[in-house]
Amino acid sequence: MTHSSAPIPQHPSELRIFGLGGVPEVTPGDDVAALVGAAVEASGLGLEPGDVLVVTHKIVSKAEGRLVRLPEVEPSALASRLAADAGKDARQIEVVLREAKRISRMDRGVIIAETVHGFVCANAGVDASNVASEVVCLLPEDPDASAAGLRAALGERFGVDVGVIVSDSFGRPWRNGIVNVAIGVAGLAPLADYRGQHDPAGYELRASVLAVADELAAAAELVMHKLEARPVALIRGYVPPTDAPPGTGRDLVMDPARDLYR
Amino acid sequence: MTHSSAPIPQHPSELRIFGLGGVPEVTPGDDVAALVGAAVEASGLGLEPGDVLVVTHKIVSKAEGRLVRLPEVEPSALASRLAADAGKDARQIEVVLREAKRISRMDRGVIIAETVHGFVCANAGVDASNVASEVVCLLPEDPDASAAGLRAALGERFGVDVGVIVSDSFGRPWRNGIVNVAIGVAGLAPLADYRGQHDPAGYELRASVLAVADELAAAAELVMHKLEARPVALIRGYVPPTDAPPGTGRDLVMDPARDLYR
Repeated sequence: MTHSSAPIPQHPSELRIFGLGGVPEVTPGDDVAALVGAAVEASGLGLEPGDVLVVTHKIVSKAEGRLVRLPEVEPSALASRLAADAGKDARQIEVVLREAKRISRMDRGVIIAETVHGFVCANAGVDASNVASEVVCLLPEDPDASAAGLRAALGERFGVDVGVIVSDSFGRPWRNGIVNVAIGVAGLAPLADYRGQHDPAGYELRASVLAVADELAAAAELVMHKLEARPVALIRGYVPPTDAPPGTGRDLVMDPARDLYR
Repeated sequence: MTHSSAPIPQHPSELRIFGLGGVPEVTPGDDVAALVGAAVEASGLGLEPGDVLVVTHKIVSKAEGRLVRLPEVEPSALASRLAADAGKDARQIEVVLREAKRISRMDRGVIIAETVHGFVCANAGVDASNVASEVVCLLPEDPDASAAGLRAALGERFGVDVGVIVSDSFGRPWRNGIVNVAIGVAGLAPLADYRGQHDPAGYELRASVLAVADELAAAAELVMHKLEARPVALIRGYVPPTDAPPGTGRDLVMDPARDLYR
């Protein structure tokens, strides 16, 4: 069992993750990049090349006006029946159905839907937390474009190239709890493909494609804390494990033809 | 849309994640706690109360002798047929079938199986990377017990209470790439349940149970890097978002009765 030939590193690698506060309540039309930039400045951290900013989609969606006032929603017959069965608000379910491209499961009061972006998640990403009463929040129309816009504006303001991830928290089959994932990506490779490389034992890695953007988003959630109004995390010291070019959040969406669990 | 009443934090919260090297190739019978403790000491970081150590299951499995030599495996007829169809090693597939409690999907050369622990993952967790040729590695028999043993030994050696996560990388439906998750947990609450609490807008959070142990495991993977022999990560500065008591990795396994995607 002694096949190790790669040098064994002695010095710890280090990643630092900061949860940034100081972002006020966001309303439609606000300039999210300006708000995020101000939060970075208020933190005293500045931005360094290679930093990754993770921004919860909620403030992006709000700024982009992706809000629906429930009193203005007329539920369909299907939404009304589903709501009655589940003891939920028919208007909110109507919004979920409008955001869905395809229903994956509709059972036990839960709607798991595929969004227009190709994400499969509860309620097609429609969410009533962290918004006003009688209002629900949708996912950004194009989270990759939102991330790219943030990246461009922050690059201009701070004069450095950073990565940007727009995040949301999704459930997963088989495991309890939700985890933060990347729904929009700009300026970094969302996947690290180790296939063809060799591990320290000399074995060729065959099934090792890591979803690093999702891991970055998950890491960021640990400092964001839902109840504390820290909608932005700054990750410093991330070393991409491969030299893959930057990609987008779409790269994380599995081709339906490969998916065994649609 | 201005419903914020919670104070807006100005100072960044900070989480630090260190990838620890210096762990030699592990062989059956090795004392993993001693090896991890030595890596902590070599890093100069020591251990502080509340630190979380994430240890890749691979070194735990190896120390626990959870290795199977393929030349000693006699494939069943089913394993041989599956291997022929998929162009794979029938002996390795035989080991996968032996480790499975239930097959979830068996299609396109992929076996997604439920393990005896209740995890649903590719190849029932049987893996040929980072081990010698003609050997495959199984998941630990009881990853929670492995985590608890590590926690006890490290607590004794360093005189502090730490959290321990034993991790593996699992795929997910709908999304490309694998991510690190917690398969064994000791000394920390794997889930943070916000239900009943109120967000900064005053809205009661209803569907917000965060799988923080999985997010910690994912964060750790970012400094572990498959090719660099850093099988241990030290997470410093993690503040549990709720005061839930410590739990185990079993808490992360969804009750099959609730699961819409078995």
